[in-house]
Amino acid sequence: MRRRKKPGSKEKLLSYERYLCTEPEKYKGNWNKYFVEKNPIHVELGTGRGQFLSTLAEMNPNINYIGIEIKEEVLLKAVEKADTKQLKNIVFLWYDINKIENIFAAGELNRFYINFCDPWPKKRWAKRRLTHRSFLEKYKYMLIKDGEIHFKTDNEKLFEFSLNEFSFVDLRLKSITFDLHHSEVENAATTEYEDKFSAMGMKIYRCEGIKIDRSS
Amino acid sequence: MRRRKKPGSKEKLLSYERYLCTEPEKYKGNWNKYFVEKNPIHVELGTGRGQFLSTLAEMNPNINYIGIEIKEEVLLKAVEKADTKQLKNIVFLWYDINKIENIFAAGELNRFYINFCDPWPKKRWAKRRLTHRSFLEKYKYMLIKDGEIHFKTDNEKLFEFSLNEFSFVDLRLKSITFDLHHSEVENAATTEYEDKFSAMGMKIYRCEGIKIDRSS
Ligand SMILES: C[S@@+](CC[C@H](N)C(=O)[O-])C[C@H]1O[C@@H](n2cnc3c(N)ncnc32)[C@H](O)[C@@H]1O
Ligand SMILES: C[S@@+](CC[C@H](N)C(=O)[O-])C[C@H]1O[C@@H](n2cnc3c(N)ncnc32)[C@H](O)[C@@H]1O
Repeated sequence: MRRRKKPGSKEKLLSYERYLCTEPEKYKGNWNKYFVEKNPIHVELGTGRGQFLSTLAEMNPNINYIGIEIKEEVLLKAVEKADTKQLKNIVFLWYDINKIENIFAAGELNRFYINFCDPWPKKRWAKRRLTHRSFLEKYKYMLIKDGEIHFKTDNEKLFEFSLNEFSFVDLRLKSITFDLHHSEVENAATTEYEDKFSAMGMKIYRCEGIKIDRSS
Repeated sequence: MRRRKKPGSKEKLLSYERYLCTEPEKYKGNWNKYFVEKNPIHVELGTGRGQFLSTLAEMNPNINYIGIEIKEEVLLKAVEKADTKQLKNIVFLWYDINKIENIFAAGELNRFYINFCDPWPKKRWAKRRLTHRSFLEKYKYMLIKDGEIHFKTDNEKLFEFSLNEFSFVDLRLKSITFDLHHSEVENAATTEYEDKFSAMGMKIYRCEGIKIDRSS
């Protein structure tokens, strides 16, 4: 990944105190206390410029949203969007998803969104894909029972890989579609990448994985 | 489905007593006694001209194979293939899969194969697809624990539909591939339709569904 650093992005980002949580480790196990209202928490991984999460936050005031992103330049755009809309139920973390276990405890989240994550096409890179079983096991641990992971991508190979990984960690697949924009599956909000790829005529793949209760 | 009837197919088919079981209802719950040797039983649904099943039967003498087909003209070809090879571990049923519950009891089968079943593309026909949840529930009931359903198709829409149906009935998906002939997934035998479609450059989709033990 090429990282073009704009000078000053970091300082500007850090100035948005209301929308950037700079010490997320402190809230591990207590995220419901972070927000004004205690509500279900949905997390987006690799949130990019934040169009998807801001749209949802506006539509669903009774859900709290957390967006995680490692690149300060794009995260700044996401934070600015939330600020413009003066949203009360969203926060962003400038954080590396590889260390996600340091910020969420078991069972405190209701949903994950993974949208157009980097495909890491070479086989030896499989472990870096955000839908690799080792990542999915972590997310699953952080979800409540019946919690969900919603995944979208333009990349067929990544989608095929991900379906196998979801099944492998015993997430029950649902609403699998190979062409979201021409299907009956609901698509409440689009992402920046999604808009770009679908404008190019590319198909969007999507599925959900549900953490089912095996104890009953 | 158009059914071109060749005169005499039926009589010819019925003459192959060794390879055609004409009263399959009688063996319900007792299929392991039908074959010379007691071995795991694998069933192919809509076996067509039988290339797939004859190939497997030759490769795996320690598995017993049952092929089910409703059209006598194509079934005759399948039976002739088995007769030419003088196979000991294969039998064919001239039977309608809609009535499959009359011929197999709970837990007496180890595997189903569904290859290139009719896609029934219109939505109102969904119930006729051999991977519809109502069929899958029947197959699942007839499988032992850890029993498997292996599915291949050239039809992307049918594949998408089928993945959702497998998940819905709680079969765990495995070895999902969107391009079997260019994947690492093993493909021990091909079918007549598969050879035709892949020669035309079409992709072959494949998955497995496992009946997992929820009691442990
Ligand atoms: C291809 S972009 C997609 C952005 C957005 N989800 C969309 O669909 O428009 C992937 C994003 O994930 C972020 N990302 C990749 N690995 C990450 C990690 N380990 N931690 C946090 N963010 C990561 C990248 O910086 C990038 O912004
Ligand atoms: C498209 S062909 C595929 C044949 C073969 N499996 C192959 O891949 O070459 C589907 C087959 O399923 C059979 N079939 C469809 N519905 C059936 C039913 N209800 N009972 C038994 N056979 C059926 C058809 O007669 C046909 O031979």
